[in-house]
Amino acid sequence: MFEVEQKIKNVLFDVDGVFTDGSFYYSADGKILKKFGPEDGDGIRFLKSIGVKLSAISADHRGFEITRSRMSDLKIPLELVSEPERHAYISQHFDLSSLAFVADGIFDAKSLGEVRCGIAPSNASRAAKRAANFITSARGGEGAVAEAAFFIGRQYFPSNFENFIVENGFNETDF
Amino acid sequence: MFEVEQKIKNVLFDVDGVFTDGSFYYSADGKILKKFGPEDGDGIRFLKSIGVKLSAISADHRGFEITRSRMSDLKIPLELVSEPERHAYISQHFDLSSLAFVADGIFDAKSLGEVRCGIAPSNASRAAKRAANFITSARGGEGAVAEAAFFIGRQYFPSNFENFIVENGFNETDF
Amino acid sequence: MFEVEQKIKNVLFDVDGVFTDGSFYYSADGKILKKFGPEDGDGIRFLKSIGVKLSAISADHRGFEITRSRMSDLKIPLELVSEPERHAYISQHFDLSSLAFVADGIFDAKSLGEVRCGIAPSNASRAAKRAANFITSARGGEGAVAEAAFFIGRQYFPSNFENFIVENGFNETDF
Amino acid sequence: MFEVEQKIKNVLFDVDGVFTDGSFYYSADGKILKKFGPEDGDGIRFLKSIGVKLSAISADHRGFEITRSRMSDLKIPLELVSEPERHAYISQHFDLSSLAFVADGIFDAKSLGEVRCGIAPSNASRAAKRAANFITSARGGEGAVAEAAFFIGRQYFPSNFENFIVENGFNETDF
Repeated sequence: MFEVEQKIKNVLFDVDGVFTDGSFYYSADGKILKKFGPEDGDGIRFLKSIGVKLSAISADHRGFEITRSRMSDLKIPLELVSEPERHAYISQHFDLSSLAFVADGIFDAKSLGEVRCGIAPSNASRAAKRAANFITSARGGEGAVAEAAFFIGRQYFPSNFENFIVENGFNETDF
Repeated sequence: MFEVEQKIKNVLFDVDGVFTDGSFYYSADGKILKKFGPEDGDGIRFLKSIGVKLSAISADHRGFEITRSRMSDLKIPLELVSEPERHAYISQHFDLSSLAFVADGIFDAKSLGEVRCGIAPSNASRAAKRAANFITSARGGEGAVAEAAFFIGRQYFPSNFENFIVENGFNETDF
Repeated sequence: MFEVEQKIKNVLFDVDGVFTDGSFYYSADGKILKKFGPEDGDGIRFLKSIGVKLSAISADHRGFEITRSRMSDLKIPLELVSEPERHAYISQHFDLSSLAFVADGIFDAKSLGEVRCGIAPSNASRAAKRAANFITSARGGEGAVAEAAFFIGRQYFPSNFENFIVENGFNETDF
Repeated sequence: MFEVEQKIKNVLFDVDGVFTDGSFYYSADGKILKKFGPEDGDGIRFLKSIGVKLSAISADHRGFEITRSRMSDLKIPLELVSEPERHAYISQHFDLSSLAFVADGIFDAKSLGEVRCGIAPSNASRAAKRAANFITSARGGEGAVAEAAFFIGRQYFPSNFENFIVENGFNETDF
C-alpha cells in the first residue's frame, strides 16, 4: 500500500498549452503577454502539500521571462529546453518510472509515452493525446493543471487525497 | 410580504471566476491584466438602487491592485482574504442568514452552502456548484454578475424588481 | 425603387458588445484595453461607399479614450451618451424612420424597437434581441458589424449591394 | 515522382485571421496587441525544413509593426499589401501554379481560387472558404497554420512528410 502511494516522485509540467492555451500576445516590441488560467494554484498547492517535487520546462525562449514570472509566483523551478532536446533532457534529469509529465506538443509525445504517468490537456496535439495515459477534460489554461494534479492525487496518493477531501469538507464527486 | 423582500441585506462577491473567467495575464514583470465582462454594471446598479449592501473579497494577493482598480470603479469595497481564511472571515463579518454569496472556487463551497443564497457561475468548480442554491447560465466574466443580481431581485425583492421591469419598459422574460 | 434604397440614411452603432464582445481589460491603473474583431472594417467601408452616414455612441466613460482610439481609426464620429440618456439622445439627434441602430444592451431595447432597422448581435441581452428586427449570427467583436452592414446593404440598398457583389467577383451566398 | 513533390515552391500567408483569430487590442494610444496561437511554429519549421519558401502579407497598416514583430521572430518576410491591391500583387510576385496561399478575407477569395493550393482556416469568410481547395479544421490563431503546413506536406511532399513522421516517431494519424 505504501509503495503504491509513492510511485510518483516528480511532476514535470510543460508550460505553454498546459498552464496556458498555448497562445501569446505580441506588441510592436515582441512577445509581451501570456494568459494563465484559474484553479491551477489549488492543484499546485495540493501536490506540494503531499510532498511531490514539481518542475517545469518551456521551449519558448522569446517568452521565457514571461513564463518565468508566472512559475516564480507558483514557486516551480523552470528550465528552458528546446523541443529537439526535450526527450533527452527528461531522460537525463528524471527517473521516468516515478515521473508524471503533463504536456501538449507533438514533440512531447515520445516522453509522454515513456513516463510512469503521461497527462495531456484536451487541447493537446493528437500525438500527445495518443501517447498520454490520461487526457484532462479541461483545456490548458482552463483548469487542466488542477485536474491533472487531483488525478495524480486520486491515482497515486489515495490516502492523501482522501484526507484532502475530508479535511476540506469536499465530496468525492467534486474532483 | 415585507419580510420576504428584506431577507437579503448583503451581497458578497468573490471576484476571480465571477467578475472574470478566472484567468489573468502575465508580462515579464508579473501579473498585470485581468479581463472583466459586459452587463455586470447593470446588475450592480440595480442591486444598489434597491438598497442592498455590496462587498467583494479576493484571495489573489499578486493581482490585488488590478482587482481593486475594477472594484473601485464599481464602488464596491474589497478585502483580501486568503482561501483558508475565507470561511471564517465570512462567518465573522456577515449575518449568513441575510447574505447572498457569489463564488466559484473549491474553498468557497462550504460558505456557499451556509449562506441564505449561494450563487455559482456556470464555470465554477464542481464543489461550488454542488453547494450553491443557484447556478447562473452565464459564465464568470460573461454576465454572471448581472444574472446573479437580477436573480436576487426576482427572488428576494419582487416588488423592486417588478418596478425596475415596468419603469424601463422591459419584459418579464428579458431576465 | 429609388425610395426603397434611400430608406436608411444613418447607421448608429453602440460600441461595447457590438464592435467588441463587451469585455475590457484592467491593469492596476484602471481600464486599459479593449479587443476589437475581424471583418468589421470591410462592412464599414461598404456602408461608407454607398453614402450612408455612420455614427457611434458609448456609455463607457472610463474606457472612452480606448473606444475613441478605435472609432477614430475607422473614421466614425463617437459621442459619450450614458444609458439613461440614450433613448432621448437618439430621438433628438436622428430621424428614427431612416435610422439603423446596432446595439446589445438592456437599455438599448427601447430604441431598437423604434428605429427603422434595429439590429442586435447574437450576444446581445434578451431585451435587445427581443426588440431588434434582425439578430446577427455573429457575436459582437466577431464579425457582427460586418454582418449588420451587409444586411443593411442587401435589404435597403439592393442595387448597391448587387454592384458590390459583381464588382468584386463575390457570390450571392458569400454574405 | 520528383515533379509531384516540387509542385509547391512558395507558401504565402495572410496574417490576420490565419496566424490570429483576426482580432486586435486597442489602448487609448491605438492598436497595440495581437494574439498569436500555438503549434504554428512547428508547421513553419517543417515547411522550412523541406525547402519551401515562405512569405507573408498583411493589409493592416496600423498594426503592421505588431505583425512584423511576430513574423520577424518566425523569420518570414512580410509585405504590407492593401486589400484592393492584393490580387494584383500576388499575380505579379508569384507563379500561381506553384503557390499555396493561406488566407481568410473576402478580398482573398479571388486569389485563393487561382493559386495551385488555396487554404482557408475554419473561421474564414464564406467567400474565402468557397474559393479554397482546403479548409482547416482549426481556426486562425488556434493551429490553422500548423494544419495548413502539414496538409501541404502530406499532399505535395509525401516523401518529406513520411520522413518527418518516421524520424520523430509520430503516427500517420497524428496530423
